Amino acid sequence: MTNKITGIAASNGVAMAKAYKLVDPDLSFETRTIDDTQGEKDRVRAAFLSSKADLEKIRTKAEESMGVDEAEVFTAHIMVTEDPELLSNINDKIDSDKTNAEAALVAVTDMFIGMFESMADDNPYMAERAADIRDVTKRVLSHLLGKELPNPALINEEVVIIAQDMTPSDTAQLDRRYVKGFITNVGGRTAHAAIMARTLEIPAIVGSEVATKEIADGDTVVLDGLDGLALVNPTADEMTAYQAKGDQYAAKKAAWAKLKNEKSVSADGKEFIIGANIGTPKDLGGVADNGAEGVGLYRTEFLYMDSTELPTEEDQFESYKKVLKSMDGKPVTVRTMDIGGDKHLPYLPLPEEDNPFLGYRAIRISLDRDDIFRTQLRALIRASVYGQLWIMFPMVATLPEFRAARDIFNEEKAKLIAEGTQVSDDIKLGIMIEIPAAAVLADKFAQEVDFFSIGTNDLIGYSMAADRGNDRISYLYQPYNPSILRLVKNVIDSAHKYGKFAAMCGEMAGDPVALPILVGMGLDEFSMSATSILQARSLMKQLDTKDMAKLADKAVDAETNDEVVALVKANVAAD
Amino acid sequence: MTNKITGIAASNGVAMAKAYKLVDPDLSFETRTIDDTQGEKDRVRAAFLSSKADLEKIRTKAEESMGVDEAEVFTAHIMVTEDPELLSNINDKIDSDKTNAEAALVAVTDMFIGMFESMADDNPYMAERAADIRDVTKRVLSHLLGKELPNPALINEEVVIIAQDMTPSDTAQLDRRYVKGFITNVGGRTAHAAIMARTLEIPAIVGSEVATKEIADGDTVVLDGLDGLALVNPTADEMTAYQAKGDQYAAKKAAWAKLKNEKSVSADGKEFIIGANIGTPKDLGGVADNGAEGVGLYRTEFLYMDSTELPTEEDQFESYKKVLKSMDGKPVTVRTMDIGGDKHLPYLPLPEEDNPFLGYRAIRISLDRDDIFRTQLRALIRASVYGQLWIMFPMVATLPEFRAARDIFNEEKAKLIAEGTQVSDDIKLGIMIEIPAAAVLADKFAQEVDFFSIGTNDLIGYSMAADRGNDRISYLYQPYNPSILRLVKNVIDSAHKYGKFAAMCGEMAGDPVALPILVGMGLDEFSMSATSILQARSLMKQLDTKDMAKLADKAVDAETNDEVVALVKANVAAD
Repeated sequence: MTNKITGIAASNGVAMAKAYKLVDPDLSFETRTIDDTQGEKDRVRAAFLSSKADLEKIRTKAEESMGVDEAEVFTAHIMVTEDPELLSNINDKIDSDKTNAEAALVAVTDMFIGMFESMADDNPYMAERAADIRDVTKRVLSHLLGKELPNPALINEEVVIIAQDMTPSDTAQLDRRYVKGFITNVGGRTAHAAIMARTLEIPAIVGSEVATKEIADGDTVVLDGLDGLALVNPTADEMTAYQAKGDQYAAKKAAWAKLKNEKSVSADGKEFIIGANIGTPKDLGGVADNGAEGVGLYRTEFLYMDSTELPTEEDQFESYKKVLKSMDGKPVTVRTMDIGGDKHLPYLPLPEEDNPFLGYRAIRISLDRDDIFRTQLRALIRASVYGQLWIMFPMVATLPEFRAARDIFNEEKAKLIAEGTQVSDDIKLGIMIEIPAAAVLADKFAQEVDFFSIGTNDLIGYSMAADRGNDRISYLYQPYNPSILRLVKNVIDSAHKYGKFAAMCGEMAGDPVALPILVGMGLDEFSMSATSILQARSLMKQLDTKDMAKLADKAVDAETNDEVVALVKANVAAD
Repeated sequence: MTNKITGIAASNGVAMAKAYKLVDPDLSFETRTIDDTQGEKDRVRAAFLSSKADLEKIRTKAEESMGVDEAEVFTAHIMVTEDPELLSNINDKIDSDKTNAEAALVAVTDMFIGMFESMADDNPYMAERAADIRDVTKRVLSHLLGKELPNPALINEEVVIIAQDMTPSDTAQLDRRYVKGFITNVGGRTAHAAIMARTLEIPAIVGSEVATKEIADGDTVVLDGLDGLALVNPTADEMTAYQAKGDQYAAKKAAWAKLKNEKSVSADGKEFIIGANIGTPKDLGGVADNGAEGVGLYRTEFLYMDSTELPTEEDQFESYKKVLKSMDGKPVTVRTMDIGGDKHLPYLPLPEEDNPFLGYRAIRISLDRDDIFRTQLRALIRASVYGQLWIMFPMVATLPEFRAARDIFNEEKAKLIAEGTQVSDDIKLGIMIEIPAAAVLADKFAQEVDFFSIGTNDLIGYSMAADRGNDRISYLYQPYNPSILRLVKNVIDSAHKYGKFAAMCGEMAGDPVALPILVGMGLDEFSMSATSILQARSLMKQLDTKDMAKLADKAVDAETNDEVVALVKANVAAD
């Protein structure tokens, strides 16, 4: 009987190919006393050179399949193989301890890794540096032991990858021509591997727990990323059925692709806006490819996190200008700095907190450290002449916070005008709605802001008092819980009561179960990962707003999350 | 000019007396090499004996002023002075290092303190043990150096104490006959020192920042605990004015005392229930003294925390029976185990969490570890025949959670009946409303529970996404924020719509600004610290429910916390 393995559906599509197990070989070794120290030093040198050659090959592959930026990690690895200090420390260790190359290598690299990791809490670059050395050590050790590491970059036939997990350097090596999909033992829908699979548009299943145990190299695997099911050595009938399912999905994707330049409109002709969430100007390619009608969330914290010091006004101005110009007059909603919580800056030490998600973060830091905030606002205001700029403040809980932020914005705008700088006179100011208190008081906020954007990830977390990153209670992260839907409805209704604009930029906006309800509630803008846009636009075209309004009314009157899922399934024909 | 110092009003009343500075002397010393090791060992022995004599005197004082239970900390200290291992380690150190008594003492006790503190994360008893040794070391060192430690227990004239902070062992020594009040530099309204001052019913100001700097020993101090103001060396006119203010407050207190056996009723005759929050059966004295009409919150986690293993069904049964019998048929609301968050059990290791307040706690643990939960429910059901038992589940976020808890309760009840145990057939089941999602969905919960009890501390924290223990953002802990008031109103209205009972057991229930609004909303039960009950009952008598309903409507339609405070001040005559 066909072995069936279930997991979390992480990226849509159906793949069929031979299994390629991405599993490290046994790299254990014995520590030995040696006399021929020169011989061991020669072995180390040779292993370093071979590793460097591997890495150069992998980098070239990665540049082809993923682009130059994604391949940068291998440049860092190559630099480790060229590091004279590392090599001389290993040679010294061989001389002083009269030990074998393997033992000297691991002793020295463990020391460096430990050193960098001890600094990692304050400086994420140190954590990356430790990871780089760990990766390279594994490769050098494999050469010393004459074992071969799996090199996903060198795969040259169609395969489905089977792995414990996929690291960033694994995914960077995947060649879409050959790697048809993957299944891992660990991870969730929002883990790195899952996100990369969606970016690469290959089917993937994560969190299967048993894939590496149940699947052997060379097995034929059907990977159904739509339903999170893998079939090992399926029957001919199963193959035919899944071939059909795959073809059907491919046909759907082709149909979605045709919607790229169309409006986002319901079956009965109501227009909505579907925007994209981006992190850096690098993401603009995907925004254009998927026909986004705006940027609904530009997360500026990457400007701060990918840096060793506070980004200057000029650096920020250039980034904002690039995004605004690229969007060519379509609205761009920029969220001001959202650090704190789980996001830290190496150069801006934050206090240790018992509950950082309930602590000093986002607008709370910006109002406290208004020097940083003013620099960001100045850069934004200067860039405003290059497009349609909407600024939103994250983690606003009270009206006085919004007013304080608006006052600072107005001061900086007035200063820039006085300095003779050209600024747009139509910058919109809004808030993220992600704190329950703000959602409850939305009618009061609506009288003062230009727009809302509902950040569902945090709103759900606070409303349910559940950190979704915490495995033990992640079942409480319930986007369709009627309490959440009621808060969302209150925000949308409050905005409209005062003629304001209601957007959503959390994961829920692109979710096929939530989207019909949100259409029914009259949400104005849906902002999501660029790769979800065309499917969302397709679904929207099939929905009647009056029917969806009735569905939304039933959903907010339901008792549980599961009841809402069943309601949507019963009322919206699956496409 | 009179020096005026402001701080946080922590305990009501007015005191006037000489300043007594509770400040440690300089206990620094030099490390010396000595020849006469026997001489040093004799000095250590003498200092230990003197310390023990001090502590016995202090314990006797503490037993008189605070009761035997509160004085237990000194028994622990005395045991440290009698510990043969500690003394022999110090003697060995003197012999081996030829060092002076002071240096040997501190080296050895530092080692023990470090050892106990390293175990403190898993076991709070170790933290207490470390604190005990630290306290005793200070005392022994003071004897070695011929310095005198302040001994608040030995104060025998009327004073106002001035201190950096008041530790539990400081407050345990206070004799109310002589200590008329205190002012500290640090702390907030909910810190240990503030709570003790309210228990002792002496005026107190905390968080003044400068009291120890600005006030000298022997200065005359007027302490106005009502408004958080201290006057140093006041004029005769000021003395007279504050004497009058103190008399007025004393008169008020005398009037409140007369309300002990009266009902809690508004000016227009509507009856409410004022209950007490308790932690252990020991608190029942205060409940009776202050005329509580029930126990609105019995926090059972102390049964678990004051223990070295899970409390047995029998131990729990005895505690519950004691409280129910003592309340003589008045309702007793028992909250099931609320551990997790910041409350840990030494014998039940919980996972490390990034945000424990958003993690595995309370009902989430009870449903996961239903062995522990069933034991507690059995003990409660068995005790139910001794009074009027209401059981409430903490941290309920969803209806399925409540239903699962109710199912387990019904199973255990059925088992006990089958076993022939007598049980009450009128046990009420309810939930704490402390998670925003539950407050929003209260109309659905109201159809299934018997009662709600609003836990405002957590409800405010989650709704505002602010941990009130975090100083940097504690300003966001806003009980009167209209968003909070709207949630509270929704809970009360939802309960009443389905004929259910709405209580509140958070700090807000006893707050003079919140109480008029809650009366206006028709809250059924107000549960608070026992010492707040009579004042609350007095305030209630002055309120007209129809006027307060109008005030409540205005409050939920306000924009900010400050606006609500102003509204109440303008509409409710201060008493």
